Amino acid sequence: MEEKKFNDFGLGEKSESNGYRAVNKDGSFNILKTNIPFFEKLNFFHNLVTMSWLNFFGYILLGYFVINFSFAAIYMSIGVDHLTGTSGTTGIDQFSEAFFFSAQTITTLGYGRVAPLGLATNIVAAIESMLGLLSFALATGLLYGRFSKSPTKIKYSDIGVIAPYQNINGFMIRVVNPQNNELLEVNADLSVSFRKEGSQHREFHNLKLERNMVFFFPSVWTIVHPIDEKSPLYKMTEKEFEKRKVEFIVMLKAFDASSSQTLYSRSSYKADEIIWGAKFTYLGQHKNGKLHIDVSGLNSYDQSGLQ
Amino acid sequence: MEEKKFNDFGLGEKSESNGYRAVNKDGSFNILKTNIPFFEKLNFFHNLVTMSWLNFFGYILLGYFVINFSFAAIYMSIGVDHLTGTSGTTGIDQFSEAFFFSAQTITTLGYGRVAPLGLATNIVAAIESMLGLLSFALATGLLYGRFSKSPTKIKYSDIGVIAPYQNINGFMIRVVNPQNNELLEVNADLSVSFRKEGSQHREFHNLKLERNMVFFFPSVWTIVHPIDEKSPLYKMTEKEFEKRKVEFIVMLKAFDASSSQTLYSRSSYKADEIIWGAKFTYLGQHKNGKLHIDVSGLNSYDQSGLQ
Amino acid sequence: MEEKKFNDFGLGEKSESNGYRAVNKDGSFNILKTNIPFFEKLNFFHNLVTMSWLNFFGYILLGYFVINFSFAAIYMSIGVDHLTGTSGTTGIDQFSEAFFFSAQTITTLGYGRVAPLGLATNIVAAIESMLGLLSFALATGLLYGRFSKSPTKIKYSDIGVIAPYQNINGFMIRVVNPQNNELLEVNADLSVSFRKEGSQHREFHNLKLERNMVFFFPSVWTIVHPIDEKSPLYKMTEKEFEKRKVEFIVMLKAFDASSSQTLYSRSSYKADEIIWGAKFTYLGQHKNGKLHIDVSGLNSYDQSGLQ
Amino acid sequence: MEEKKFNDFGLGEKSESNGYRAVNKDGSFNILKTNIPFFEKLNFFHNLVTMSWLNFFGYILLGYFVINFSFAAIYMSIGVDHLTGTSGTTGIDQFSEAFFFSAQTITTLGYGRVAPLGLATNIVAAIESMLGLLSFALATGLLYGRFSKSPTKIKYSDIGVIAPYQNINGFMIRVVNPQNNELLEVNADLSVSFRKEGSQHREFHNLKLERNMVFFFPSVWTIVHPIDEKSPLYKMTEKEFEKRKVEFIVMLKAFDASSSQTLYSRSSYKADEIIWGAKFTYLGQHKNGKLHIDVSGLNSYDQSGLQ
Repeated sequence: MEEKKFNDFGLGEKSESNGYRAVNKDGSFNILKTNIPFFEKLNFFHNLVTMSWLNFFGYILLGYFVINFSFAAIYMSIGVDHLTGTSGTTGIDQFSEAFFFSAQTITTLGYGRVAPLGLATNIVAAIESMLGLLSFALATGLLYGRFSKSPTKIKYSDIGVIAPYQNINGFMIRVVNPQNNELLEVNADLSVSFRKEGSQHREFHNLKLERNMVFFFPSVWTIVHPIDEKSPLYKMTEKEFEKRKVEFIVMLKAFDASSSQTLYSRSSYKADEIIWGAKFTYLGQHKNGKLHIDVSGLNSYDQSGLQ
Repeated sequence: MEEKKFNDFGLGEKSESNGYRAVNKDGSFNILKTNIPFFEKLNFFHNLVTMSWLNFFGYILLGYFVINFSFAAIYMSIGVDHLTGTSGTTGIDQFSEAFFFSAQTITTLGYGRVAPLGLATNIVAAIESMLGLLSFALATGLLYGRFSKSPTKIKYSDIGVIAPYQNINGFMIRVVNPQNNELLEVNADLSVSFRKEGSQHREFHNLKLERNMVFFFPSVWTIVHPIDEKSPLYKMTEKEFEKRKVEFIVMLKAFDASSSQTLYSRSSYKADEIIWGAKFTYLGQHKNGKLHIDVSGLNSYDQSGLQ
Repeated sequence: MEEKKFNDFGLGEKSESNGYRAVNKDGSFNILKTNIPFFEKLNFFHNLVTMSWLNFFGYILLGYFVINFSFAAIYMSIGVDHLTGTSGTTGIDQFSEAFFFSAQTITTLGYGRVAPLGLATNIVAAIESMLGLLSFALATGLLYGRFSKSPTKIKYSDIGVIAPYQNINGFMIRVVNPQNNELLEVNADLSVSFRKEGSQHREFHNLKLERNMVFFFPSVWTIVHPIDEKSPLYKMTEKEFEKRKVEFIVMLKAFDASSSQTLYSRSSYKADEIIWGAKFTYLGQHKNGKLHIDVSGLNSYDQSGLQ
Repeated sequence: MEEKKFNDFGLGEKSESNGYRAVNKDGSFNILKTNIPFFEKLNFFHNLVTMSWLNFFGYILLGYFVINFSFAAIYMSIGVDHLTGTSGTTGIDQFSEAFFFSAQTITTLGYGRVAPLGLATNIVAAIESMLGLLSFALATGLLYGRFSKSPTKIKYSDIGVIAPYQNINGFMIRVVNPQNNELLEVNADLSVSFRKEGSQHREFHNLKLERNMVFFFPSVWTIVHPIDEKSPLYKMTEKEFEKRKVEFIVMLKAFDASSSQTLYSRSSYKADEIIWGAKFTYLGQHKNGKLHIDVSGLNSYDQSGLQ
């Protein structure tokens, strides 16, 4: 199986600026889509699921206030005397009673100290409580959706190494799952892009891996691309890596057993993040029948005995 | 790997009418299933999830009204005097009190101004509140299900092009994800159907793609079928495309990271939607370390320098 | 790719009784697991999701009654005088008041006509309302889980046919999706088992299909196993089918776009459900630019012109 | 297809202690990750989903108490006279009234015997009821998530056997699904690790299976690795198994149709859990047109007639 060379798929094959990196270390893209009509860009669900927790609760609180304010205005316009038990005499007091009556209605709290009287007020309250149930359910569904979203962060080694591997060289990076939840069927995909010889254009290659899937991922996994004669990196030197602006893009996909969700993550390695002639240090140590893995050594490598 | 020729799978291989197109641009099929028994066709969940928002809320409101009306009738038949705090004297007033008591019960609002008294009324109210909890939960589950359904719309180029590709020709279309949510593991499948030579019957072929999967889809992806000697399109001309009523069907499958759902979409290209001897215009431009992709140019192509 | 012969995987390879069929037409197995410890067999979730709707609501109603009965007993034992607003004088009346107070508490209805007074009653009510929220949520979660479970039933033709197919014979069955929801990436798997020559034991084979996946399944799909020289059925006659107790097992897997769930279904064909020298009738007809598929003809076949 | 030899992927390739076993019988790993920063380790969702039911309800009860206690303190600090209907005169009585008022508010029970009066108390109550709805929804979402988590436990035979298989030997283990829910598309993966000859280091191999997937899993499945000349176990003896500390790791993946979830499970076999020259006993028996499978015989094997 030969490494496949493929077209640019939106990462930019042309006229690249000098320091350009298609994928950042955190996996985000340095890509900006422009001239998209507003309504095509719109994706409420996506926004509500990915915004910060502070913003999320802010919007909920704001929505809660606006809705109660609006319904209070409706109750006022029908007449505050259709709410039993209210005692406010000033407009502000009355509005405040209507406001809190609305809050008690929309949450289906219904203390009953204040209660609706008459057809119009009763209709509005009946509709409000129904809307309340629906919209709170939506909010809490989103809340749970956010909460259950796998927070698992696979950690990538800051650097890649090029080390001897089974008589040839191999490009290696290392990943770790710092948490205790199980990641299963972890798939890795490694691509490389670099400038074509004597050109400003880039070529893209998918790289063959020693192993592109592990069924379980208990601690640390070293992802290895063997640089054999079929590899596009064959005989490339450290200097060429620099000159041709090599960028490796690694992508992981895993099943998170806690959340029953599929998890994707990405990172990238530019030429200056690759150590030549180094090997990752082995992190395991047997103690009391257990294998202890020192996760803090994720980036540690060893150049002794290698050229 | 040769392109596989396969049987009609329900798209219609015989006696095709002249302007027939199996798949519309928006991905829907021009197929109508007839003579299906009513109960086999029935699929409440599907209908509730796919109907328009207006219809959905309409049905909920209608259901809410019908249920409260029915329970009001039950409370009336037991006797309105078993509801404390009611003051209506006319039948209509009493029914309206019973109706709103029902609404306050089914939403578990329970102001308590009106409350049940006596065994029968209490039993009905206890059952109503339980049913209310269950059916509102169902409604809100559906609401969330609809809302979280990936609204992502992959946009297809209106036209396909046939352009030189690595010494041969290639059939190309272009797709874009206009939104900011991530689409991952995007799979493409391309089929073609055309009339058999000198026949009214159609043959179907699956077409080999330069790349049928991208792990991530940051902006624009050009899907390419290389027309090599193994392709069923090999040596076919623009005229033959027209005469043999060529129809390409493209299908995309992607994982939407926001909603954790798999997303499918489809489109099609008839002979008159294909530009011969044209190349899609490159849309990228580097600015401030970012690659700007002008999405509005999805359909723009270039015929200069090509024959 | 040759058809693979494999071991019995729990379907019974030995000393088969005469009329035995491993898989019924509806996809269920004629298999009974015995001697399983009770606690290993137990699977509440599975039972609650697969029981009939009648049983499901029966259990919910029963649970609702039992819980309210139990809490009523607790309130009575603390003293009914700790519930304000109760007016019952006989024990039964008091218990009934406590019972309905419990119902109003567990559903968080809380009319307030009856309300808790004193530490003990308040503690019980506070706990009951909390339990109520949790258990109703569980019940409604199950309700939604049941409701959203894809009700899609793929229909299999009652009979399979053996018909000429591309110069050889093919074994064919036909399936239809009677509903309007989309089924995507439909995978088919076909196995056959029959008695070994001159033995009571069975052998199992996986059969190669003309096409084992369709990306979309708009109407009718004919699943074809070409009986070429690599097929275990090669040169077998109708008589041998009967004598060797042939049983085909077909399995479909599809993605139901409405429910975002994967759907599995199964059926089987014994020797006497296979028509030799017959072809399925084509069901399509073009009308007004649409292809009409007469689903009621699923089982219709044609033996004219075939031997 | 040759068995692939691969690198250690975190299971420990070096300086193994004597009795070390990488994977326990129950599928857990003997691996301990050390030196992980606290915030990287943190995974609330995972903890809440995997903790015991007792702990889970304990935390909910505790949270319920703490929240009500805190809100009671807020209501007290505003002034208990802003709660209508309270009658407590001592501080403790008043706090207890505020506490239960809070409980009635956060569950949206709202009896109304006690109700908020005045701006500050009303604002707090309105916020509390909203927070209550959100946090109860979170709790119940977690509850349902825990409950619906597939409790299916695939049972592995305690021992593996090495038995004649199609003229060569095969390594076999047996698995059973003791429950009535359907497991579909069951995938098996078998690996082996043992010490390199004359070394303390281990090598890892993935083993080819007779069949690595069954579409359905009605009862018992015997997983077979044929020890042919390509197998890393070829010509290894029982003694070598012991000396080289052989450890088999088996992994199953299945789709649980009840919960629509993917299920993973694991087990392992050390040299002393492998019986040489034995065959698993066949467990089926035909009765009344059904195949009865005696699941209790999962571990039973037979050495007669084998050497």
